[in-house]
Amino acid sequence: MATRQGNATILLETKPEIISNAAVVGKKEGEGPLGKYFDEIFFDGTLGLDSWEKAESKFLKTAAEKSIAKANLRASQIQAIFSGDLLNQCTGSAFGIRGLGIPFAGLFSACSTMSLSLLLASMAIETGAFSYTAAATCSHFCSAEKQFRQPLEYGGQRTPTAQWTVTGAGAAILGKRQHESNPYIDAVRIGKIVDYDITDANNMGAAMAPAACDTICGFLKDTGTSPSDYDMILTGDLGSVGSELLCQLTEKEHGINIRSVHRDCGLMIFDLEKQDVHAGGSGCGCSASVLCSYILNSMRKNKFRKILFAATGALMSPVSSLQGESIPGISHAVRIIKD
Amino acid sequence: MATRQGNATILLETKPEIISNAAVVGKKEGEGPLGKYFDEIFFDGTLGLDSWEKAESKFLKTAAEKSIAKANLRASQIQAIFSGDLLNQCTGSAFGIRGLGIPFAGLFSACSTMSLSLLLASMAIETGAFSYTAAATCSHFCSAEKQFRQPLEYGGQRTPTAQWTVTGAGAAILGKRQHESNPYIDAVRIGKIVDYDITDANNMGAAMAPAACDTICGFLKDTGTSPSDYDMILTGDLGSVGSELLCQLTEKEHGINIRSVHRDCGLMIFDLEKQDVHAGGSGCGCSASVLCSYILNSMRKNKFRKILFAATGALMSPVSSLQGESIPGISHAVRIIKD
Repeated sequence: MATRQGNATILLETKPEIISNAAVVGKKEGEGPLGKYFDEIFFDGTLGLDSWEKAESKFLKTAAEKSIAKANLRASQIQAIFSGDLLNQCTGSAFGIRGLGIPFAGLFSACSTMSLSLLLASMAIETGAFSYTAAATCSHFCSAEKQFRQPLEYGGQRTPTAQWTVTGAGAAILGKRQHESNPYIDAVRIGKIVDYDITDANNMGAAMAPAACDTICGFLKDTGTSPSDYDMILTGDLGSVGSELLCQLTEKEHGINIRSVHRDCGLMIFDLEKQDVHAGGSGCGCSASVLCSYILNSMRKNKFRKILFAATGALMSPVSSLQGESIPGISHAVRIIKD
Repeated sequence: MATRQGNATILLETKPEIISNAAVVGKKEGEGPLGKYFDEIFFDGTLGLDSWEKAESKFLKTAAEKSIAKANLRASQIQAIFSGDLLNQCTGSAFGIRGLGIPFAGLFSACSTMSLSLLLASMAIETGAFSYTAAATCSHFCSAEKQFRQPLEYGGQRTPTAQWTVTGAGAAILGKRQHESNPYIDAVRIGKIVDYDITDANNMGAAMAPAACDTICGFLKDTGTSPSDYDMILTGDLGSVGSELLCQLTEKEHGINIRSVHRDCGLMIFDLEKQDVHAGGSGCGCSASVLCSYILNSMRKNKFRKILFAATGALMSPVSSLQGESIPGISHAVRIIKD
């Protein structure tokens, strides 16, 4: 039976294992520092389809199918897939999962979706009723630009704090703990919405950093652990601006220095200088593709033993920003262990 | 420990109880047949705010706060709220929940959100780590028309199969079973996406009926129960067109006649003849406000003892429809019992 520490940190007794993981990305991501770790790189971002949205769904479907195959399972053996994305009405995930026949719990947690999906997929295993669950998410630079900013053809200038939405998807298959060699999830924390009144939709990192601070410091306190207990405290897509803010905030508000172990998927997936992505990568697919390739594969090789993964999301819409609303941030955490 | 029947039906051992429920609606809903059952009716659909979207969030927040108060709890005692809505990037729920300080798991399951949120909130209780969880959702006629159809000012004509998005919200507080007098959830089923190639976005009932058929018949078979075992098999917003299709489909595809016990929240909330709503009510707030008022209140008075609640969702977006995609349907089920 799972137990709770504090009001929001959940220790999982069954320690659901991550049986397999897969990530597929676009050309720019494939040319970045983590290129060799991805399962497949698609150099044509349309995947031969006639819309960016359809391509995004295909990215998700491909990552899900690859992770299922790597787990030596069939889709019919997965009892639930937890998935969401950034598109209006989350069609990226729904249309991607449509053909798989897997019971589907749709999520929306913006760019923190990968940690929320892992969290719920592991809690489902913890109930005892599910043998296998899946967590997956995706994003696509072109569908995101079109929906959130401007048509690509417009060639709009990007601010220095802007981030580059990752074209890609990541998926993981979870199951009851059977194999000691697999990484597993032993604790999770559902995040609270934190809003520091940031209204600049071109500075998402700043809007999300306070939520990451709340979740990470809350998790460390509830579990009685310190940053040095971890090989990595990994955020999703704070980018360069948000990452610096997070390190300042954890120190100032909680007296916790995470600098030596903090990494951010948005700073890992691209070479910020050479690839002209300004403050770094972003999007649901950013943390999903980094976690489900380099990070989990390195854990399987014992390079990392203990990671606190806290993807971050900005819960705004173009309409809410136009209506003058600030940007609520959220961050969910899962702790991943490799014995 | 929860157990699984078949591939997707989950029996909950701890039988999480529904401690309280609350529903708030707009003027038209208040004038309908269930008017006297709602906790509050707002005759000004803006709630004095300057946008429909802000009003929608306020509806959700009000329902959540009322349900928390009715459970004699404070928001800080709720360890997770599962919530989503129809607005782009689910801002209806995020901005509604922002001020409450409750850990937030964001969902998107279109109009099936109330059953998905109850399902996940009860599964969280089942893990043993959560004392109290909440499930909530909302919709607003004006924000939905603006986003999915036409500006209200345009005065567009509605087709006979069109449905009327409910302005309202419903919320429920779940907890470990303590009081025998409370209704409780003893089984759930996460739905699969079912797509019968319906492309008419003005006929959602037809698009969602096959998913409801799959979930309801799958649940009945897995649990070895028949329609006569239930006081009600309650769908969310199939409306008149979808409800008839559902009854035909369950009989034709599975030989199961549900006519005598089937009810649909979309047909209950409005008087179809007098209120000019065409095929009935719809929206996340439709099943949420009907379940969290008339249905659960009647269960508390022993009027109903056993209900299979299977809200239904259409996982499309205006973009997917314009791109020629068909409408994927989904339905999640929770069985609610009153001893």
